[in-house]
Amino acid sequence: MPRRNPQPLPPTVAVRLEVVDDPRAISVIAGAVGAVGGRVRSLSTVRRAGRAGVLPDAPATVTVELEVEDADEPAVVGALGPLAEVVVIHLTRPMGKIFGKRVIVVGGGAQVAQVALGAVTEADRHNLRGERISVDTIPLVGEEHIANAVRAVADLPRARMLVLAGSIMGGEISTAADELRAVGIPIIALNMVGSITEHVDLVVSDPVQAGTMAVMAVADTATLDLARLKGRRY
Amino acid sequence: MPRRNPQPLPPTVAVRLEVVDDPRAISVIAGAVGAVGGRVRSLSTVRRAGRAGVLPDAPATVTVELEVEDADEPAVVGALGPLAEVVVIHLTRPMGKIFGKRVIVVGGGAQVAQVALGAVTEADRHNLRGERISVDTIPLVGEEHIANAVRAVADLPRARMLVLAGSIMGGEISTAADELRAVGIPIIALNMVGSITEHVDLVVSDPVQAGTMAVMAVADTATLDLARLKGRRY
Repeated sequence: MPRRNPQPLPPTVAVRLEVVDDPRAISVIAGAVGAVGGRVRSLSTVRRAGRAGVLPDAPATVTVELEVEDADEPAVVGALGPLAEVVVIHLTRPMGKIFGKRVIVVGGGAQVAQVALGAVTEADRHNLRGERISVDTIPLVGEEHIANAVRAVADLPRARMLVLAGSIMGGEISTAADELRAVGIPIIALNMVGSITEHVDLVVSDPVQAGTMAVMAVADTATLDLARLKGRRY
Repeated sequence: MPRRNPQPLPPTVAVRLEVVDDPRAISVIAGAVGAVGGRVRSLSTVRRAGRAGVLPDAPATVTVELEVEDADEPAVVGALGPLAEVVVIHLTRPMGKIFGKRVIVVGGGAQVAQVALGAVTEADRHNLRGERISVDTIPLVGEEHIANAVRAVADLPRARMLVLAGSIMGGEISTAADELRAVGIPIIALNMVGSITEHVDLVVSDPVQAGTMAVMAVADTATLDLARLKGRRY
């Protein structure tokens, strides 16, 4: 059966850098990577204030996780090592290899926890066979907060599926759901009050089942094809 | 009672960009942001192949989420708008405001799900009062895979706490736990077989309680101070 994302991503080099905290530093770093043909795919500032507290004369630094495609490890390290902006380089592993695809669960605490139970249990079975699927959750209340979270899923790295777990959702949340699906991220919703059930790919009444199906739909080791179930209710 | 992270982060501007997929593009973008005093704090490639598929002559593009500190929205948009590398700009919201602090849960599926139940339920209570706490999980098996995940938590944006949920952990996982705590991320472990319980901040026997305490320890709306419990077992 054809899968939604059959082509593997190109190899990624990951490094953790301690960087002088200057507004120009990231441009210099990305420029050095680009000069050896690398494409910066991800950069996260994970900690602030490095050695500045230790050595009084040292400049303020930040710790940055950097992921690069289309250049190999020696090329990336060779490009970044000589830069004055880079204080320390440490090879790490790309996030995609460790935490993999992400199923996001948003809604009320009671239901989010039950969806997570199904999704984590199912992800366990696939991760044992070589998959990498994470289940990431946030309990939230209120149309505006949930709509903002739905929209933000479009900007989360490696997000492949959203599960909306609540008792009543509609209005701005349904608008946000349409926007998210338009960028290619499918949505499963619990069977609930409100217009949301008309704006998702699949409606599932049992939260454990919803979590299980969400993981099956993104796993290459399963054969649940959401496109063939579009609009169904279980 | 003093909290671990009392100082708020500076305001962040977030934009979603469609960018020409050239190795130099990110350097040009970061340079334009730096020229108006902004610091690039986060960049994620969230989708590939934009309009290249729609208009045959258009260059390949990628969609990138960019977060910048120390420059306001008009300055960032004004700096990026004229660039040839930037095809579309869309204002978004910084991830920290939507998904907030992250509690990461790693281990066996059965226990991860129970820790998640406690953590999601407790996060619900704090998020109702204005906190933003996410509970992000991955079920994994095997010393090497778990040790790699523990190390990678150091490179996850907004990760504030790790919960190790399993029945036996030690060896390389304990070494990775020491490394993670050395960069300032505390660890709660379930009471289990193996050396891991000697390499964490707190040991909790009940998984729901472990998840609850993990969230309380990172919530500004709670008063559980992990530093005062160091080495205790519950």
